[in-house]
Amino acid sequence: MARALQSPLAVSLGDPAGIGPEVIAKCWDNRETFGLPPFVAIGDPRSVAAVWDGPIEIVDSPRQADSAFDYGLPLLQLNSPSPADVPGHPSVAGAHTSLDALEMAVGLARSGSAAAVVTGPVAKEQLYSIGFTHPGQTEFVAERCGISPGNVVMMLAGPTLRTIPVTTHIPVSAVAGRLSAALIESRGRAAIRGLQRNFGIAEPRLAVSGLNPHAGEGGQLGREEMEIIAPAIAALAAEGWRVTGPHPADTMFHARARANYDAALCMYHDQALIPIKALHFEEAVNVTLGLPIVRTAPDHGTAFDIAGQDRADPRPMAAAIRMAAENAVLRIDAA
Amino acid sequence: MARALQSPLAVSLGDPAGIGPEVIAKCWDNRETFGLPPFVAIGDPRSVAAVWDGPIEIVDSPRQADSAFDYGLPLLQLNSPSPADVPGHPSVAGAHTSLDALEMAVGLARSGSAAAVVTGPVAKEQLYSIGFTHPGQTEFVAERCGISPGNVVMMLAGPTLRTIPVTTHIPVSAVAGRLSAALIESRGRAAIRGLQRNFGIAEPRLAVSGLNPHAGEGGQLGREEMEIIAPAIAALAAEGWRVTGPHPADTMFHARARANYDAALCMYHDQALIPIKALHFEEAVNVTLGLPIVRTAPDHGTAFDIAGQDRADPRPMAAAIRMAAENAVLRIDAA
Repeated sequence: MARALQSPLAVSLGDPAGIGPEVIAKCWDNRETFGLPPFVAIGDPRSVAAVWDGPIEIVDSPRQADSAFDYGLPLLQLNSPSPADVPGHPSVAGAHTSLDALEMAVGLARSGSAAAVVTGPVAKEQLYSIGFTHPGQTEFVAERCGISPGNVVMMLAGPTLRTIPVTTHIPVSAVAGRLSAALIESRGRAAIRGLQRNFGIAEPRLAVSGLNPHAGEGGQLGREEMEIIAPAIAALAAEGWRVTGPHPADTMFHARARANYDAALCMYHDQALIPIKALHFEEAVNVTLGLPIVRTAPDHGTAFDIAGQDRADPRPMAAAIRMAAENAVLRIDAA
Repeated sequence: MARALQSPLAVSLGDPAGIGPEVIAKCWDNRETFGLPPFVAIGDPRSVAAVWDGPIEIVDSPRQADSAFDYGLPLLQLNSPSPADVPGHPSVAGAHTSLDALEMAVGLARSGSAAAVVTGPVAKEQLYSIGFTHPGQTEFVAERCGISPGNVVMMLAGPTLRTIPVTTHIPVSAVAGRLSAALIESRGRAAIRGLQRNFGIAEPRLAVSGLNPHAGEGGQLGREEMEIIAPAIAALAAEGWRVTGPHPADTMFHARARANYDAALCMYHDQALIPIKALHFEEAVNVTLGLPIVRTAPDHGTAFDIAGQDRADPRPMAAAIRMAAENAVLRIDAA
């Protein structure tokens, strides 16, 4: 890392019955191996104690996390309902705790008390039942930062590949209808700015995929490339950005092709997520671009089926913490 | 290899102006490094001589290829038009030569004079102009073998992953409408039989992908999984096959997931081709299942833009030749 962070990272535990508490505790256990800077966990300490025997250092403020980090997992405690949640058994009370932790983490980052936010996995079904109306944590964070959810984008980032989906959680049959040049341009600009601000790339190279096999093969296999995607690329290029495509999606993601761009802008969810998870399953980090703060998350869910069994792999969470620190440093340096 | 082949492999040169002649000649050059058995090239020797200085052994029959293979690239010559084709400049005459070579290779394999067919890349546009009406070489080979093109399937096979697309060269917006349980079952059966016959897997494990993000997430992100894909899986399972799914496509292709199946049945072109090319770009082989003969091909095109420049990578062709030999041996052993 170019230089040290001024403040610790804020890591929300996510749903107390999911694997969040376990993987975050394991990250503290392996902080040296994983190369992690000081961070403070936020949530219910009982959810950590239920799955981990290590030392927990309750702190009152992120400022104490730096010195506490050597002795135990620094944890900022929330007012939580009793009884404690049981690993693997999500509850409405647990969803409430996860939301409080998220809110606190974002607030700390916005005020500068935390250098960045890393979010543990939450249970959407339970969140919806307590009145949460956002599709996911990303949109909630955006709103709390005063940003329209339409102006933030999800990037999946691994060691040799970064992808950004233009459309996300919609059926495949709806993708073509949802695409527009304006949407692709907007996502493209957010991606480029994110590569500059979060990753320190002065002149980002963006590769844009086609939608159809062989990128439509000159209109033979679909016309979205000619009518929507190519015009969007031309518009971005006219603004001076280094944007190429539409590229056939199947030949964009091998090692030699990946060397030609800093991020791939993909037309739909699986087009972006299949290659990143095939190549970097344990290291893929979800980075939210377009926010005034740095926010990352591991790209996995609550995994209730294995919670509390000491089986959860902490590497994705470690990658998310590490990338949050790296991005936060780059933002400081750029400021 | 379990045992030697009784006859050489027949390798059609593909379009004489493409990279086929170059990569096939380079395969002979590196036959020991690549671990290749004797094969006979079929086509116009001038297209090889134009791009390669090595020895060409003109043979009259595949029987002579075994002994000739030590001295040069065995080549079965066709009646070709003059003048010779120029690398990088496709012509109608060259398309004719490529079709003659393909026809000859298939005939030799059907008669048993060749152990299998490996096809070099052809130029579809030029083939169409001489009256070729098949979508590609696969359908032509099927017809010459007396098999309905609907009953053969394309498999992409690499060292750690095999995928089969249910639909292929159609726009993404047309995929959902083209899917049916009957089609998925038919492709699934062909895939299973192919894994048994060509790859010697007695009880193949087939993993079937979903169409939509998160495999539809219980109907929230699309209903094709519930209405079409799951019933097809149930029908195949009821026949006694080991078939699982629908799996979310983005979490099917990492190393741990790949260990759970022998092939992935995918709903559309890029869903099958993105992961195989991301993981195995230089080694992905196109295998046609459902034929009475073994047929493989490298998964690249004519690459006219680099033909004749000594830049073409022979590894995909070598992988196709090696897999054809392996599949042919397994078929002999199974017979």
